[in-house]
Amino acid sequence: MSVLIVGSTALDSIKTPKAENPRLLGGSASHAAVAASFFGPVKLVGVVGEDFPKRYIQLYQRHGIELEGLQRLPGKTFHWSGEYELNMNNRRTLLTELGVFETFNPTLPAAYQSAPFVLLANIAPALQLHVLTQMRRPRFVVADTMDLWLNVALADLLKLVKRLDAFVLNDSEAHQLTGEDNLFSALKQIHRLGPKYVVIKQGSHGSILSSPRGLFLCPAYPLKKVVDPTGAGDSFVGGMMGYLAAAKGPVDNHIRRAMTYGSVVASFCCEGFGLQRTTRITRKQIDGRLKELERLARF
Amino acid sequence: MSVLIVGSTALDSIKTPKAENPRLLGGSASHAAVAASFFGPVKLVGVVGEDFPKRYIQLYQRHGIELEGLQRLPGKTFHWSGEYELNMNNRRTLLTELGVFETFNPTLPAAYQSAPFVLLANIAPALQLHVLTQMRRPRFVVADTMDLWLNVALADLLKLVKRLDAFVLNDSEAHQLTGEDNLFSALKQIHRLGPKYVVIKQGSHGSILSSPRGLFLCPAYPLKKVVDPTGAGDSFVGGMMGYLAAAKGPVDNHIRRAMTYGSVVASFCCEGFGLQRTTRITRKQIDGRLKELERLARF
Repeated sequence: MSVLIVGSTALDSIKTPKAENPRLLGGSASHAAVAASFFGPVKLVGVVGEDFPKRYIQLYQRHGIELEGLQRLPGKTFHWSGEYELNMNNRRTLLTELGVFETFNPTLPAAYQSAPFVLLANIAPALQLHVLTQMRRPRFVVADTMDLWLNVALADLLKLVKRLDAFVLNDSEAHQLTGEDNLFSALKQIHRLGPKYVVIKQGSHGSILSSPRGLFLCPAYPLKKVVDPTGAGDSFVGGMMGYLAAAKGPVDNHIRRAMTYGSVVASFCCEGFGLQRTTRITRKQIDGRLKELERLARF
Repeated sequence: MSVLIVGSTALDSIKTPKAENPRLLGGSASHAAVAASFFGPVKLVGVVGEDFPKRYIQLYQRHGIELEGLQRLPGKTFHWSGEYELNMNNRRTLLTELGVFETFNPTLPAAYQSAPFVLLANIAPALQLHVLTQMRRPRFVVADTMDLWLNVALADLLKLVKRLDAFVLNDSEAHQLTGEDNLFSALKQIHRLGPKYVVIKQGSHGSILSSPRGLFLCPAYPLKKVVDPTGAGDSFVGGMMGYLAAAKGPVDNHIRRAMTYGSVVASFCCEGFGLQRTTRITRKQIDGRLKELERLARF
């Protein structure tokens, strides 16, 4: 089954202590869509400006990503620029130019409205809601977010969260949202906001699922070298939703493995700038790393 | 087989945002010995002063801990006092009175010298070395440490590390010791210092083993409430060594499960002040939580 993915489609200029890479293909929806594409069909919703390079359109196409919902509008593509510190965990946003995203208000193509799996990748919660309201009885709706929206659009975010099956956020956002220092107490509070499934991303420490079947501790693949972690969280949810949409039967039967697949795709993402590494891997390499992760976590 | 444990035997005065507990039984050797005692015989090496309460001796005895190597000397018991912040991760040492530990220079009882498993729990590396040199061909020697010794006794620590089978430290100490930001690069460097096994403790994020058979990612048991994390790291290594000493066959066959047992005992430790929770659990409860952890980590 196919997964609809909405989020940012952007150009990222990324600085690390070792290198500088201007105007890479980036954005939450780009990372999530490429990650999901290894598992099954993906329908992308986004917007780009006149300056969006043709080669990035071709990149989407090479991954079989459906682009009927990708608009090209007069103006500039969303441009984000950030700089990482030596430890690759702390990053500073240098610049955010929303460009054509400022007024983006998409009407979904008819073929998109019945997609059974919906990933509302990180973007303004009002836009995530706008897309969700156009969907016809989706089977499983997941949203990712970031601290920015907790600060500037909390009311929208809470309206959205009420309608989700699964909500994905990182540990510091979970603390911020609930005021709870203990993660597992925070989880309990987040469930009360609506979602049956809550996923906490913890970067190199893996992720945690809280669901009707209890907790799942999902490991992260150990990386000897992190080149650029931008998009790792998006790749994680993208890989997770791609796998879930391709699996048959109840979500509960597959969500642990889906998260682990997401974790593996995210690990590849960190090994190159932007999407440079993720776009060069194969499903076989992903499966290989998943098996390795199984061996590393067995006791 | 029995495990010899040397380390601090102390009185801990612990303050958290919710409570204050003066003069609890504490010290790395106390926590490690009680943790190890659930799995098999333990020989304790340490020193206490005239002020050491009789009920703490009885506590050791109730756990079947051999005390021939525990000296009582004129003077005061090692006293540590610390305060935790609300998040229970950051702590501040308020006071350290070494007392009788200042001049402690034990000669091991004959029956101790042939213990096959040796745990040099956190204490000055010179004392760890002093004990190790008295051992007769031990099968497996593990040392734990803390940032203090990296700062004030690095030469001694490096001399010790060269003679270890396994070295246990936390992630920030691994970074400090090697200057490496990436944990897996740091591991490689630590192996070059001597030990075939390196264990990195990551608190609530679990722990990582690097060994001749590769990496193992050991999960932490998820706790809804952390009362006092003092001694969790000591309980972890104590539980690990207790299980290893009781297991038959090569260490490589058991070390993953040993770490997981250590992780479980450490989780109980965090649920009470000092040793208050750890001393009230049973092997059955430990096994129950281990099984639960297996279910939580399966994918």
